[in-house]
Amino acid sequence: MTQSNEMYNVAILGATGAVGQQMMDTLDRLNFPVDELKLLSSKRSAGKKISFKGKELTVEEAKPESFEGIDLALFSAGGSISKELAPEAVKRGAVVVDNTSAFRMTEGIPLVVPEVNSDALKNHKGIIANPNCSTIQMVAAMEPIRKQFGLKRVIVSTYQAVSGAGNAAVDEMYEQTQQIMNDEPIDPQILPVGGDKKHYQIAFNAVPQIDVFQSNGYTFEEMKMINETKKIMSDESIQVVATCVRIPVETGHSESVYIEVEKEGLTVDTFKNIMKDADGVTLQDDPTQQIYPLATDAQGKDDVFVGRIRQDLDHPKGFHFWVVSDNLLKGAALNSVQIAQSLVEQGLLKK
Amino acid sequence: MTQSNEMYNVAILGATGAVGQQMMDTLDRLNFPVDELKLLSSKRSAGKKISFKGKELTVEEAKPESFEGIDLALFSAGGSISKELAPEAVKRGAVVVDNTSAFRMTEGIPLVVPEVNSDALKNHKGIIANPNCSTIQMVAAMEPIRKQFGLKRVIVSTYQAVSGAGNAAVDEMYEQTQQIMNDEPIDPQILPVGGDKKHYQIAFNAVPQIDVFQSNGYTFEEMKMINETKKIMSDESIQVVATCVRIPVETGHSESVYIEVEKEGLTVDTFKNIMKDADGVTLQDDPTQQIYPLATDAQGKDDVFVGRIRQDLDHPKGFHFWVVSDNLLKGAALNSVQIAQSLVEQGLLKK
Repeated sequence: MTQSNEMYNVAILGATGAVGQQMMDTLDRLNFPVDELKLLSSKRSAGKKISFKGKELTVEEAKPESFEGIDLALFSAGGSISKELAPEAVKRGAVVVDNTSAFRMTEGIPLVVPEVNSDALKNHKGIIANPNCSTIQMVAAMEPIRKQFGLKRVIVSTYQAVSGAGNAAVDEMYEQTQQIMNDEPIDPQILPVGGDKKHYQIAFNAVPQIDVFQSNGYTFEEMKMINETKKIMSDESIQVVATCVRIPVETGHSESVYIEVEKEGLTVDTFKNIMKDADGVTLQDDPTQQIYPLATDAQGKDDVFVGRIRQDLDHPKGFHFWVVSDNLLKGAALNSVQIAQSLVEQGLLKK
Repeated sequence: MTQSNEMYNVAILGATGAVGQQMMDTLDRLNFPVDELKLLSSKRSAGKKISFKGKELTVEEAKPESFEGIDLALFSAGGSISKELAPEAVKRGAVVVDNTSAFRMTEGIPLVVPEVNSDALKNHKGIIANPNCSTIQMVAAMEPIRKQFGLKRVIVSTYQAVSGAGNAAVDEMYEQTQQIMNDEPIDPQILPVGGDKKHYQIAFNAVPQIDVFQSNGYTFEEMKMINETKKIMSDESIQVVATCVRIPVETGHSESVYIEVEKEGLTVDTFKNIMKDADGVTLQDDPTQQIYPLATDAQGKDDVFVGRIRQDLDHPKGFHFWVVSDNLLKGAALNSVQIAQSLVEQGLLKK
């Protein structure tokens, strides 16, 4: 895929987390031209050994000087760490692809889904933001429709997987599930939000809170979907509203998306054909054969899966569809590496 | 609640099913004036013993003559049985409250949620249809808003519990869950739809199919929500579109509902106050305390729980809310018994 023969020194910050692990796998699987790989983490996880391409690497504690000699740094260790260390990495010559919410809405910092707005990378000043997982899969599916028919409004309800809240949340879900199966008492400690006041049962439940509440009654996750969609599509006039819900699925976010297009003439068949041709999208839509996207099928796959495409029977410009993707891959690690690939292809990543 | 001292001979058809059991409990709990109770089922379940108010009753095979002397018959044994036996029951003088989809859209047959349209009972000709579970809780929450602000459109995505597909589906979910926890192979046989061609994993998944697909690409469950909402609200001009999804929850349907009202001036505070005063609705909405409806809290309760009320930041007449209710109670058995209560109160149930 790359147009140069350069090899790059790459750092992964948050290397021991769920996304960090996927970043390493994805660099390897997509054959990204890695010269040296440096694995960074908090002090607590430093010292762990992880192998990459048959070589054992030791995770180091991330410090400003860790980024000396690094060309590309993939960050996924929480917003406050990104705020502290991304400028330090940039100062030392690295380009940072940041998978936290720290810089997503900062003016001048590109927020990129390569299939949608790789052009925005041209203006980067060292930091590039990777959008929120739930946003990425939705905009990847909507963009090819928007290009041809415009996009007036988006109304989305999510069915999000627990791995989006980290490995400890996944452990909590499985432990809680077993306790309920055994008729034992449960003691939620993490979900819906690790640092929040109350914790609720996730096993055999649906919890309409992802991330903390904002003063306007929306959760931060919902505001991310609203604001990031407009920024990625460079159109503040698109009306977006979201309800984000966690359900007991390990990996694979599902979303029920309703859109209203601007132009007349879109049919279900045209919609399906556009999805068939779309980059990074796989159409799974045949009601006669009960074919539709499922979280269990999307796990471990790169694509965004779209199905259940229906025209609103009362509103010819309204369409419902169901979009599923691996939240750790296209929703996080894969999109970050694809941003890096696009930087290389556009000659925007310097040795 | 009743205004007469009459006692009624009541039959429950489908007495051994998940909803039938709840019907019996609800008759008892709401102190419905039952004189004799007759429990009916298919031939397969006949002979089972079930106790009601301390008296052991034997389930009998349902036949046309089973309804001799019955004043009120609550049906919940599948659409084809309702089509066959409801006219027979009516012929013998019973009023039938039917919890299947057999007669819901038949012209002249009232489709009733008592809080919304108990007036429609006045025109009954022997059969009254109980709406679909997912429709009931949504219209119960929307009606008080519609009365004051009108209702232009409804866009709903559901998170439906497995008990809506019957006891065998619940057993499948738990068995499958344990198999996955044990790393054993699974063999889906029932969900998403017992009689359909393919069966998918429900444990740790979200399945966007409830009931069979129609030729227009919608599932029958989605068409029920669309058509029944208009019929219950007696307004064909309301635009309704639905995506219905099964998730691994035993009991308690959750729904993410977006509505657009007709009139200006609705605020989140007004919306909350209207919910506080609404019959059969409990407001659970305080983001600062992480208070919102949860399926696990709604199980076994009569009310429809509403929360996460937010105004669309881009569309002042648009509102998102989250509504949860016990699908076996308000969604089925309770609503059926409430219909019977309303018949008694209106003097429409004769001995």
